[in-house]
This record gives sequence, structure tokens and C-alpha cells, in this order.
Amino acid sequence: MTFAFDNAPVWLDLLGVFFFAVSGSLLAARKHIDIVGSLLLASLVGLGGGVIRDIILNTGPPAAFTTPAYLVPPVLATALVYFLFPYVQRYTSMLTLFDAGGLALFCMTGTIKALASGMNPVASVLLGVTTAVGGGLLRDVTANEVPELFNPKSIYAVPAFVGSAMTSALWVFGLFNVLTAAVVAAVVFAFRVLAWRRSWQAPLAVNGWQRRSSDPKP
Amino acid sequence: MTFAFDNAPVWLDLLGVFFFAVSGSLLAARKHIDIVGSLLLASLVGLGGGVIRDIILNTGPPAAFTTPAYLVPPVLATALVYFLFPYVQRYTSMLTLFDAGGLALFCMTGTIKALASGMNPVASVLLGVTTAVGGGLLRDVTANEVPELFNPKSIYAVPAFVGSAMTSALWVFGLFNVLTAAVVAAVVFAFRVLAWRRSWQAPLAVNGWQRRSSDPKP
Amino acid sequence: MTFAFDNAPVWLDLLGVFFFAVSGSLLAARKHIDIVGSLLLASLVGLGGGVIRDIILNTGPPAAFTTPAYLVPPVLATALVYFLFPYVQRYTSMLTLFDAGGLALFCMTGTIKALASGMNPVASVLLGVTTAVGGGLLRDVTANEVPELFNPKSIYAVPAFVGSAMTSALWVFGLFNVLTAAVVAAVVFAFRVLAWRRSWQAPLAVNGWQRRSSDPKP
Repeated sequence: MTFAFDNAPVWLDLLGVFFFAVSGSLLAARKHIDIVGSLLLASLVGLGGGVIRDIILNTGPPAAFTTPAYLVPPVLATALVYFLFPYVQRYTSMLTLFDAGGLALFCMTGTIKALASGMNPVASVLLGVTTAVGGGLLRDVTANEVPELFNPKSIYAVPAFVGSAMTSALWVFGLFNVLTAAVVAAVVFAFRVLAWRRSWQAPLAVNGWQRRSSDPKP
Repeated sequence: MTFAFDNAPVWLDLLGVFFFAVSGSLLAARKHIDIVGSLLLASLVGLGGGVIRDIILNTGPPAAFTTPAYLVPPVLATALVYFLFPYVQRYTSMLTLFDAGGLALFCMTGTIKALASGMNPVASVLLGVTTAVGGGLLRDVTANEVPELFNPKSIYAVPAFVGSAMTSALWVFGLFNVLTAAVVAAVVFAFRVLAWRRSWQAPLAVNGWQRRSSDPKP
Repeated sequence: MTFAFDNAPVWLDLLGVFFFAVSGSLLAARKHIDIVGSLLLASLVGLGGGVIRDIILNTGPPAAFTTPAYLVPPVLATALVYFLFPYVQRYTSMLTLFDAGGLALFCMTGTIKALASGMNPVASVLLGVTTAVGGGLLRDVTANEVPELFNPKSIYAVPAFVGSAMTSALWVFGLFNVLTAAVVAAVVFAFRVLAWRRSWQAPLAVNGWQRRSSDPKP
């Protein structure tokens, strides 16, 4: 066994799909949607980012459609939420934690897949960020929520950018392996969760503007 | 003439486009949108699912862009709704009926196109469902409606899944032809319309949860 | 130097990206979103239409991902809005003007790219319109606004259609060059701005219907 990653291993991608899928099913449970909707939201958020990534890479049909294994995580997530939600629903942070796990893994797999298929390092960072935030954006737009991505009371895209940039740099210098990948995932996860917990905020879009009391609460 | 389908015939795809396009123009009429918006919604819902399908199959530009005939159904649907809506507007079920017709045909053409281009039967079912529900999802998200797909008081994706699974099984066993195709379309259409008429409901996303009186009425 | 365009020049595409990106950042400023959201909206509206175009053309990964220069306009737009918005915010028409500039350039570059890659003239017009309206539609759907495209009190898609049709006709007859391109851009820009200023309205989707006082004000 080697520790070097030439490409994103399938199990890492599937783990990211599972984390995102759980966040989709948790949102369905909260919104009192039925179990079919739960499976659809789990699939959309779990597979959406990767499908966008593979369509942009343009190297054949997306992995989610050619590899039946990709259908397992959404089904598993829907079943877990169906049976276990009553026991865990008081832990309201769970949706954000699973979403952060998906974000941490997807910014890596998106960047690595892009680099492995010959994209330049800058474009690979862009595709990594797109992969990581794409599924969650589809989830929120479809479920008619304000996208977490544009929530001014929290930071969502910056951790994905940091993770993609770290991944791209490590890969270019030949240092991307199981150990450094674990470090990148931990950094992205911790950054996102801390930003959410402590309501870290980026400056507003206009120099000198202050947040108003009428803005939504964090 | 042979009754066997090796691939989805263009006329079947065009008929599905027409059904979906009418549902788009009817929504535009109900929402008091102008005629340009009516044509755009008709095109989006009629062509959207097929464009997503062809992009995922990755076998060249989508048929809707390379075959000018695909532009006829949205124009026709917009014109029909423009002239005939005052005479039929009391039949409020019409939008759902045309939408069900599109659903019945698109889950078949999506599955067959995927099988004919070499996808495995499981992935073909997934693409069939995506094709069938894709256009309607785009219509509802764009027109800022709660997607019918996530309406917990009705069943929308399950008939498409049943139709795609039947199509895939018939094709694998070499039994897919004009007659069995008509049976599949009739089953999907009847299933969807009955589910809507009688408000069949799937279980909620969480085991043991009941519908609440505060949930939207069917 | 020749005045003939065989394909859409990159600088013309980049200029269109910049105009649309400014409209995205201006919307972020108005909605009191943070600077990360401003950059994301600028990228989505600036690059979205072109990415959809390149995915449909299916000629390899989209230019926005392979050419790092495409990342400059969104960054520039975000920075300009960040520093200059306080001085220009009373000119509330600015968002519409920049959006109209993007529309004028994108309907041309979309049509030309389609023609240059071998699409037929009718399909090229369709792709030109899709390119021109795609980014703005993504912007409005993501930011949870009613899409300008479906605003019955204004005309948005028709100028893009006129521009695409003019471009396609000029290209087919070998008359598309720097001078005629400038004329097309001016026509589309003037048409869109006049339609907005004077609230030109298309007929409603149903023959004989009148606008109601309950419809949104122009």
C-alpha cells in the first residue's frame, strides 16, 4: 500500500457523499417532508456537487451515474435519519456538522480530480470550491431556503477555498498523501465549525458599511 | 416497420416535450406572466430535463440544441395557451394532467437513451428519473413555487421511478416495444394522476412522525 | 489586424463577464451581503452563462475553468463595488445598466461560439439567448429574487433574442466584424435600457387578458 494519492480514491468521495446526504435528509426531517423527498434531497446534496464537477471536467458521464456504489450513501442516510432522528433531534448542530464533513472531503476530491485530469492548479482550486459548495447550494435553493453560502452571519466558502488551495499546493509539490489529506480535512472542518459556532463574519460587500440590527440574527 | 425500440424515437421525445411545455405555459397563465415568460417557461420545462439528460450522457451537444424540431413544441404550447386558455381555465387539473403526460414519456425516453448509449441498467433508471423530474423542478424553482417534487401531500417521483424501472427491465429482457411502451406510459400516468386525485401520501421522513394540522393542505 | 471575427475574441467575452460581475456585486451590496458573497455572486453571474454555454457545446472543460484570466473580472468587480459603492449608490439604475452591457456582449459571444463550433444558425441563436440570460437567472434564483427574466413589467429576453438573431444572420452572410458587432451591441443595449426605462411590456400569456392593479408595479 502506498500513502500517495494520484487521484481521489472512491471511498473518500463516497464518505463525502454520505456526510452531505445526511445533511439533506436532516433538512427534510426538519421541514416535515416525506421519505421520498428525504431520499431526493439526500441524493441532490450528496451527488449534486460531484455531478457538476464531472460535467465541467467533461471526461465522460459523471461517476454518480456510472458507478452504482454512489447510490448507497443517499439510501443509507435516508434510512438512518428515518430510524434515528427522534433520538438525535435535540442536537440541532448535527446538520451543520455533517455538512462541514462533506465540505472538508469534497474540496479535496474536487481539487484532486481536476489536477489528475490535467487542469492547471488555479482552475483546480476553483473546481474544488465549486464541488464543495455546489451540492449544498442546490439543496438550499431547491428546498427554498436562503443558501447557507450567502448567509452573512457565517463563513462557508472560505474554508472550502483554504482546503482547495492547500490540496492544490500539496499536490503540486508531491506532498499530498493520506497524512496531509487528514490534516487538510481537519483544518477545513475545524475552520467551518468554529466560524459557525462563533459567528465569525466577513466584512460586508461595501467598504465602511456596518451590520444593521435589521440584518438576520446569526 | 418494426415494433422494437433500439433507441428512443424522436417523435416520442417531442410529444413529452409538448406535454411538459403546455404545463409551463399554463403555469405562466395562472401567474399572470407575459407571453415571453410563457415561452421561456414552456421551453425550460419542456427542454430542461432532456438537456440535463444529454449533458450527463456526454455524447455531444443536447438534442434540443442540434435538432431545430425541438423548438416547435414550446412555441406551439405557448400559442395554444394564449388562444385557448379562456375556454379551459375552469379545468384546473389540466396543468397536472399535462405534467403527468410529460412524466410518463420522459421517464421512458431518458431510460432508453441511457441504455442505448451503454449505461448500466441501474444508472439508466437513475437518469430516467432525473430526466422526468428535472424539467418540472427547474420550472418550479424558477417560478419561485414550492417544487411539486417535494410536495408531501402528493407523490411525484415514485411513478417516474416505477416507469423507469419497468422500462429498464423490459429493455434488458428484449421486451421493450410499442405495445409494452404504451403499457408503461399508461401505468405511470394513471399512478401519478391517482396519487394526485386521492392525495396518496408517502410516510414522513422520520419513523413514527404524524402529519400535523399546520402542514399545507393537500 | 483584420476586422473579421472567426470566433468570439477572449477580450470581448471577458468584458461581458466584467459587466455581469459588477451587476452581481451591486446586488450583493444592496442586499447587505458580505464580501465573500459578493465575490461568489459576481462569479456566478459573470461566469455562469458562459459555463452553461461551454457545457452545452461539449468541446472540453469550460473556458472559465481552463483560462485563469476569467477569474480577474469577478475579483475586479468585487473590489470596485467594495471601494466605490458609497459614491455611486444613489444611481440605482447602475445594476440594470451593467446587466444590459453583459446581455449585449453575451448574446453575441454565445452565438458566435456556437456557430464557430459547427452548430446550425437556429440552434446558435438559442444558445446565444441561453448564454445571455443564464447568468442573470442563476443570480436571481440564488439570491432568492424574482428573476428579472420573468418580470412582466419589463422586457429582458427579447433584446437578447434580437441580438443573437442579428449576429447569426451577419455571420452566415460573412458580414460579422468589429463594426457590425458594435452596431449589434448598441442595438441590444439601447433596446434593453429603453424597455426598462419606459416599462415596455409584452402582451400577457393569455389572449384578451389585461394587467390587473394587483400586479406588481413596474
